[in-house]
Amino acid sequence: MKGKEGKVSRREFLAATAGFFAGVAVGSGGLLLLPGCTQKTAEKQVNTGAEKVQIKEVIPKPPWKYEKIDPQKAAQIAYESWYEGFCTYAVVKGVFKALGEKVGEPYKSFPLEAIRWGHGGVVGWGTICGTLTGAGIVTGFIAGKEGEKMINDIVYWYSTTELPIFEPKNPKATIKNKSVSNSPLCHISVGRWMKKENVKFFSPERKERCARLAADVAAKTVEILNAWKDGTYKPAYTVSQAKKYQITAQNNCMDCHAKGVPPLPGT
Amino acid sequence: MKGKEGKVSRREFLAATAGFFAGVAVGSGGLLLLPGCTQKTAEKQVNTGAEKVQIKEVIPKPPWKYEKIDPQKAAQIAYESWYEGFCTYAVVKGVFKALGEKVGEPYKSFPLEAIRWGHGGVVGWGTICGTLTGAGIVTGFIAGKEGEKMINDIVYWYSTTELPIFEPKNPKATIKNKSVSNSPLCHISVGRWMKKENVKFFSPERKERCARLAADVAAKTVEILNAWKDGTYKPAYTVSQAKKYQITAQNNCMDCHAKGVPPLPGT
Repeated sequence: MKGKEGKVSRREFLAATAGFFAGVAVGSGGLLLLPGCTQKTAEKQVNTGAEKVQIKEVIPKPPWKYEKIDPQKAAQIAYESWYEGFCTYAVVKGVFKALGEKVGEPYKSFPLEAIRWGHGGVVGWGTICGTLTGAGIVTGFIAGKEGEKMINDIVYWYSTTELPIFEPKNPKATIKNKSVSNSPLCHISVGRWMKKENVKFFSPERKERCARLAADVAAKTVEILNAWKDGTYKPAYTVSQAKKYQITAQNNCMDCHAKGVPPLPGT
Repeated sequence: MKGKEGKVSRREFLAATAGFFAGVAVGSGGLLLLPGCTQKTAEKQVNTGAEKVQIKEVIPKPPWKYEKIDPQKAAQIAYESWYEGFCTYAVVKGVFKALGEKVGEPYKSFPLEAIRWGHGGVVGWGTICGTLTGAGIVTGFIAGKEGEKMINDIVYWYSTTELPIFEPKNPKATIKNKSVSNSPLCHISVGRWMKKENVKFFSPERKERCARLAADVAAKTVEILNAWKDGTYKPAYTVSQAKKYQITAQNNCMDCHAKGVPPLPGT
């Protein structure tokens, strides 16, 4: 992980530190124990007076340390987590919890409440499916700019694949249908599936579908990251949407434009 | 910032630590100097052997420490940053760079390449405007679940306001028009403006419009966060889109549905 050292800067002591460590200050680099300050002593200090410890909180730069994990493990966590915090939260927790168990930080401390807002296509506005916002966050933090190829791949796969695929061991509801969204938009994706299943938005079946979709996106994201770790990842979809259409776009233009929505100038 | 201590766990030493600090290990709480290890000594250790220092990489839980900043300062940084990394990157950098100068970590180390993928409505797919993804990330990390009200507010404001407003001191291109997007979607927002301005997507004018829009969203986000810091923030738009429409949705239904796109069951 390049650039770690360069990113470290001073942090304030916790206020409680001042009394006990009077006359003692902290260097600029993180936890430092000098020779003579043994592990036992240090840990005792920590254990008996945790509030006296300064915590240096910096966020590592991508790429984050990655170890291959089981896509189905991430999927199962994502499925269960949907019912805690919806779609974006579910995908990020599915991948990061599995990675946290294997790798540790920064996955363990990643604050899931910070990215929960992606649900329902951004707090219910029906735009990008929140599972894809989750996949963008996962690939972005793990792989940095290289992750952009991955999220482009995942969006294409999402838009062209019959979903959901995942079959939970203990489903919370029974659903009958899969559907192809032909769009990464929450409104269109969930709307097409609801029409096929003939259920309403606030139904157990719709919730179950979205939970399983989160599992699918978590698994797909892990498959790509595992291949990337192996050095075998090749993007399946290398199209630049903006260059293809001369505007940012999906691939379902005629859903709107054939119905009379005016095309853009020059198209 | 609640929960910091609870979130800290062990991290590996940097490999280089092992030799110099043989027999010395690290407690579980971050940087710790024991009595007798004076500031001068510690800093010398750090200064003369920075590579021997362990760095604790954990991500703090929201709410992150916040100090009021000048919205126009964030806007100017966002405007300039658009030309480095596009819309999501620009908004996050606009706010976090200004905060980093005032507050320090974790803003300073926040890795902007991890969230660049939001550009063009998620790597060019034309979905949620990348400035709004940036605003979601900013409000989510700073305010946690409370940030969801903020991003809902910002999406509504974005969709109903003539933009761009921001006037850079040294514009990179001249533009004539503002437009109301009536949608948080990149494709619709930029498409409507391009039609009014009569320019193509890969034109200096379109880029300038998006850079100024990033400035506007950064400024709006800071205004809300400043009010929140003062304890005076009240969401201006409290509607739940999903409850209003019985599906996740925007407010421009007739753009598509009046043209013949089938409505959903029960609507």
